[in-house]
Amino acid sequence: MKKLINDPDDVVDEMLDGMTAAHPDRLRRLPDTQVLVREDAPLDGKVGIVTGGGSGHEPTHAGYVGDGMLDGAAAGGVFSSPTADEFEELIAACDGDAGVLCVIKNYEGDVMNFETAIELAEMEGATVESVVVDDDVAVEDSLYTSGRRGVCGTILVHKAAGAKAAAGADLPEVKRVAEKTVDNVATMGMALTSCVTPEKGEPTFDLGDDEIELGIGIHGEPGTERTDVMSADEVTEELTEAVLEDLELEPGREVVTIVNGMGGTPQMELFVVNRRLRELLGERDLSVHDAWVGDYMTSLDMAGVSITVCAVDDELKELFDATTDTPALTVS
Amino acid sequence: MKKLINDPDDVVDEMLDGMTAAHPDRLRRLPDTQVLVREDAPLDGKVGIVTGGGSGHEPTHAGYVGDGMLDGAAAGGVFSSPTADEFEELIAACDGDAGVLCVIKNYEGDVMNFETAIELAEMEGATVESVVVDDDVAVEDSLYTSGRRGVCGTILVHKAAGAKAAAGADLPEVKRVAEKTVDNVATMGMALTSCVTPEKGEPTFDLGDDEIELGIGIHGEPGTERTDVMSADEVTEELTEAVLEDLELEPGREVVTIVNGMGGTPQMELFVVNRRLRELLGERDLSVHDAWVGDYMTSLDMAGVSITVCAVDDELKELFDATTDTPALTVS
Repeated sequence: MKKLINDPDDVVDEMLDGMTAAHPDRLRRLPDTQVLVREDAPLDGKVGIVTGGGSGHEPTHAGYVGDGMLDGAAAGGVFSSPTADEFEELIAACDGDAGVLCVIKNYEGDVMNFETAIELAEMEGATVESVVVDDDVAVEDSLYTSGRRGVCGTILVHKAAGAKAAAGADLPEVKRVAEKTVDNVATMGMALTSCVTPEKGEPTFDLGDDEIELGIGIHGEPGTERTDVMSADEVTEELTEAVLEDLELEPGREVVTIVNGMGGTPQMELFVVNRRLRELLGERDLSVHDAWVGDYMTSLDMAGVSITVCAVDDELKELFDATTDTPALTVS
Repeated sequence: MKKLINDPDDVVDEMLDGMTAAHPDRLRRLPDTQVLVREDAPLDGKVGIVTGGGSGHEPTHAGYVGDGMLDGAAAGGVFSSPTADEFEELIAACDGDAGVLCVIKNYEGDVMNFETAIELAEMEGATVESVVVDDDVAVEDSLYTSGRRGVCGTILVHKAAGAKAAAGADLPEVKRVAEKTVDNVATMGMALTSCVTPEKGEPTFDLGDDEIELGIGIHGEPGTERTDVMSADEVTEELTEAVLEDLELEPGREVVTIVNGMGGTPQMELFVVNRRLRELLGERDLSVHDAWVGDYMTSLDMAGVSITVCAVDDELKELFDATTDTPALTVS
């Protein structure tokens, strides 16, 4: 399989340099690390918001570093967790003496290494809290995961926590809105094709020409069902059904939705999915406060889509609508 | 080949409905057309900026409709031009009595149908000007094209003209900065894989597992050279070399660059390309005022990249930096 890379061993390093080259006014790479932070980090007196995880999900994670979202992000190898040392450097670099909130997607490596980093940071006197995101309703346990996986709903946790911190809230308040987002968000994805990692150079899993996989993970982990190709409307119905069943929303609720491309999906197809999603929500008397459509958390070149629904109240709406200025998301 | 669509005949219609569903506060679809305009079009006293062309290049075209860029865009079928009638409706809907500028990518169908529409609009008393974008340095004539093709540099023409119009300039001034952008921008692309149209359902062209195509068009038109797979750095060198040879820039000049994904390319790879592009420009003593990396003008699910370089002076820098708020591009 062909890729626009040089040596697979260098791909993360070169990607990070390409990111700082694109955004020198926004992003700074900590020397001898795979950690990118805001150019002006730490912000004195502001709660720091940090995250991180395996590479290959771009624009997750560093794409969301900037005003109103993250202060920094650690990048692991492709689909592998950053080390505890890198997480610790990240936390230290984003600590403006108002505490740091770590947003952790629920994968064993990320959770373990972040926990170690937090202990080390606390031994140095830092005040650190964390929130674990597990929005993927597809499977209860999985490869790399005890409990549900953290996927695209994580972007909304970054947005809510980032906006609250930017508004001057203290660490307990910032953590509260992050947890509130986690409690109200659910996601499910599917794949038409497997991703191909630079290292392996061939599909992570086999999927026939007439097959799709529902409930896929963002590393190509098995989903809930392998089935015959469906229409876009049928796929949208399957994913939306599963997400709404998890959220159990009363009619009349407002939601924010994300139709997220997995990396290899044309935007045309994402909008076709968004059209049916909007219809399905309308049929249930759920009104859409905001709809995001694009590539927010990818799986390299996988063709596929995930649907995220987050129930919102006035507080979450205000946080999601707040201005932000990052490489991958700008709200003005 | 699997796609997230329903009936291929409905894909553009459903996509447009999915776009307005995502952006009801920004986009409005003219009844019984494939034309999307600003929700508040026409803006009284502002020069209207319009464009259009085949679908399958999303977020081009309607993704750039909004404050500081386009007032409206007509969508044709996949890779086919909108009709003259649709272009005429577009022009009329975006005419706020200060004239309308049509930004036309240089393809025979688009040029012919836009020209007819302009004649019809002028017969109705409208004042309309046009600018043709032909930034692709790869080939002189091509399938669908007399002269060079219009590709990703067109986004910068939208940005410059849109910013000038938003600042209150008159039609000749808006046209002048659009033409200035055309005169200073050059692009070249390449493909790792063919796109697959919904209608055909299989690759538009055959490319071996060990081959790439340099100079590819955004509809899969033939490029300049089919060659063995190259590294990302080698590809970047080939494309950058061709673009800079065309622009003939003196050392010390400032440029804005776009590393554009063709639709199926992971962002990771785009950043790897951006890293080398920045190095190459530095070696020639060209300084980068701004670097855009992402999917701006795609070719459905094609894996590949194009590199755009635009030489900028103070005027163009101000226009490119001006605030804009559209579905696909926000500058705050």
